Amino acid sequence: MKLGRLNHVGVATPSIERSVALYRERMGAEQVGEPFDLPAQGVRVCFVDAPNTQVELIEPLGPDSPIARFLEKNPEGGQHHLCFEVPDIAQARAWFEGQGARVLGDTRIGAHGTPIFFLHPKDMGGVLTEIMESPKQAH
Amino acid sequence: MKLGRLNHVGVATPSIERSVALYRERMGAEQVGEPFDLPAQGVRVCFVDAPNTQVELIEPLGPDSPIARFLEKNPEGGQHHLCFEVPDIAQARAWFEGQGARVLGDTRIGAHGTPIFFLHPKDMGGVLTEIMESPKQAH
Repeated sequence: MKLGRLNHVGVATPSIERSVALYRERMGAEQVGEPFDLPAQGVRVCFVDAPNTQVELIEPLGPDSPIARFLEKNPEGGQHHLCFEVPDIAQARAWFEGQGARVLGDTRIGAHGTPIFFLHPKDMGGVLTEIMESPKQAH
Repeated sequence: MKLGRLNHVGVATPSIERSVALYRERMGAEQVGEPFDLPAQGVRVCFVDAPNTQVELIEPLGPDSPIARFLEKNPEGGQHHLCFEVPDIAQARAWFEGQGARVLGDTRIGAHGTPIFFLHPKDMGGVLTEIMESPKQAH
């Protein structure tokens, strides 16, 4: 296991529209993707490009969204997770399980179309950590 | 104003030593700097290199540290701030002030030896945001 690229920082928001305006107008973001729904995860997402990584804006899709509770505690939004890339998701999962780190749920397809899983913050220094297989074109 | 590189993600921790072990042993970090004190900021810091950015581990220097309260709420640590680079700190400060964003305190020298300031999370979508002048060799 080798620490990979920080693919993105996940930032929860009550309104992607308002956050996109903030990143464009206040922070000067020039590349912002189209928002899209990930119904299986209960979220709507939108990627903002910085030169070396991305900010993933995450808005709840309905009151049962896994980020609804986060937004109850942090009504204005805030940092939600860090996502690091690995070359092989199955190997990475076996590695973390072998370390006794709690993997949250099944490996599934994430916002970039590659397999991902999440690791419990209590096993990751308080940081909800997403592990994502690098997109193939990146190899 | 143009969105710059994500220089680092600031992660608060009750123990840099324990967090470094986690990043090395569990995440496979190979490049980890020497921890050092920033007494003016009330913190001890340590940079962990990912291929495209850094994680800044931050431990309180004493009970009056500005991150002591954060750790009371998040005893295991967690994501504390995002730091984006700008080419000119004075221009950036004037830009954010002109936008009505609250700048927290004076511009000062940060952990990388270049001038920095922080922006209030309430004006940044809930994200405590550090703005840092890029190191000169990066230009």
